Amino acid sequence: MPYTLRRKVMFKDCDPARIVFYPRYFEMLNDTVECFFDEVLGCPFERLHQDHAVPTARIDTVFTAPSRLGDWLDITLTCIRLGRSSLDLAFAVRCGDEPRLRAASTLVHVGPDGRPVPWTGELRKALEYQIKGTD
Amino acid sequence: MPYTLRRKVMFKDCDPARIVFYPRYFEMLNDTVECFFDEVLGCPFERLHQDHAVPTARIDTVFTAPSRLGDWLDITLTCIRLGRSSLDLAFAVRCGDEPRLRAASTLVHVGPDGRPVPWTGELRKALEYQIKGTD
Amino acid sequence: MPYTLRRKVMFKDCDPARIVFYPRYFEMLNDTVECFFDEVLGCPFERLHQDHAVPTARIDTVFTAPSRLGDWLDITLTCIRLGRSSLDLAFAVRCGDEPRLRAASTLVHVGPDGRPVPWTGELRKALEYQIKGTD
Amino acid sequence: MPYTLRRKVMFKDCDPARIVFYPRYFEMLNDTVECFFDEVLGCPFERLHQDHAVPTARIDTVFTAPSRLGDWLDITLTCIRLGRSSLDLAFAVRCGDEPRLRAASTLVHVGPDGRPVPWTGELRKALEYQIKGTD
Repeated sequence: MPYTLRRKVMFKDCDPARIVFYPRYFEMLNDTVECFFDEVLGCPFERLHQDHAVPTARIDTVFTAPSRLGDWLDITLTCIRLGRSSLDLAFAVRCGDEPRLRAASTLVHVGPDGRPVPWTGELRKALEYQIKGTD
Repeated sequence: MPYTLRRKVMFKDCDPARIVFYPRYFEMLNDTVECFFDEVLGCPFERLHQDHAVPTARIDTVFTAPSRLGDWLDITLTCIRLGRSSLDLAFAVRCGDEPRLRAASTLVHVGPDGRPVPWTGELRKALEYQIKGTD
Repeated sequence: MPYTLRRKVMFKDCDPARIVFYPRYFEMLNDTVECFFDEVLGCPFERLHQDHAVPTARIDTVFTAPSRLGDWLDITLTCIRLGRSSLDLAFAVRCGDEPRLRAASTLVHVGPDGRPVPWTGELRKALEYQIKGTD
Repeated sequence: MPYTLRRKVMFKDCDPARIVFYPRYFEMLNDTVECFFDEVLGCPFERLHQDHAVPTARIDTVFTAPSRLGDWLDITLTCIRLGRSSLDLAFAVRCGDEPRLRAASTLVHVGPDGRPVPWTGELRKALEYQIKGTD
């Protein structure tokens, strides 16, 4: 069950070449993960980050076409694989029918000391439901 | 011939988990490319961007350990392969002996209309020298 | 007629002290100006910035209380005074009933060469309506 | 005794109008405070922020001329007044002889609960020395 965040390209996102500065895309992807945890998994970051965190362990990104000031982007997140304490995600950013970016990342669920801890309880159930739902 | 930018992790780079927020690493990598074009290739961005640009076409990144406020990072850029209008780069970020991040990216040299244009003249020569120098 | 943008404090906005890093507030204020030009004045930045710009000439800001990850902020913009080529704005940021920030800024309408140009036509009319509406 | 940080305007600082996006100036000012605490006061942020913080309570800023990609900026910080738990600062940003920005801010020294705590010990002494030195 893909989750989509719709977002306009703002002035702050753009560089002197008048296209999205690529580090800003990663802020958008992080916003998408954050909204997904809040709205879909029922685990907002202000609660999760009281004693845990979900740092990104790797991310592979292809930028297929530039995005310009004012473009409306659909940022789609799909849960791909759930590990003991990891989560593989796929991202697709589109403007209308035009693909702009594809990415694949792995998040790790860590505890207060920064070491991986298993996904458990309601959060694991919600993530498992996301994976099954995409089959 | 690897190029290294030495940079302290600043307050602005860090997130509520007190580690570098990963989109900020991409700002550091972009800074490194920019300093490399200026100091090594003799082609500062303020000149290059008058009529060209070097957007990133893809970047694959592995975050091997978190970086904390105050850490001194050595960000090393190595030219890997020079295409007609592309350039493959490898990045390694270390704090002392500890690896923090590895990345591989491809830049594309584009003209005013955003289409790829060949590397030519002094800039191509300088890039070729970098590639040969790494053999 | 005040305009309000409602916005959650995201992970990217927060610093290691777990509160909004103050430069991020200025991105929020800029977003608010941008949404106001688009939604209220009918002049989106992607059109305005084809040949004009509205740089900030000064901004005075008081931070009355910190904002935390997950807080919902109401960012209110009020047009205060319209000059020949300038615009005075007032901002108030609140979380529920609690004030977080007050700011007063002046924007300048500039042409392609960066020099001030008068507000004219529909844009001036829309701005005048905003000022009168606040009386 | 003014402290100056010299810094080139980088690609990441600039907006589609090809000038420094004003929220990025506040990142530069924060970097300057951070370097000043580290290099001049002998109190780096990685130590200070273990149990304290120095949030900005207000900042008034005038942008006198735009800065462009590649400009070298001299960012000068001067300690103006030391309160029980506050510190007034003045900033001037110049490119060569041309002024670009002036700002006046107040920082507050706070403890783990975010409440003001007096400047004490070596840090107060170092700050007092800065104030006297500017007479």
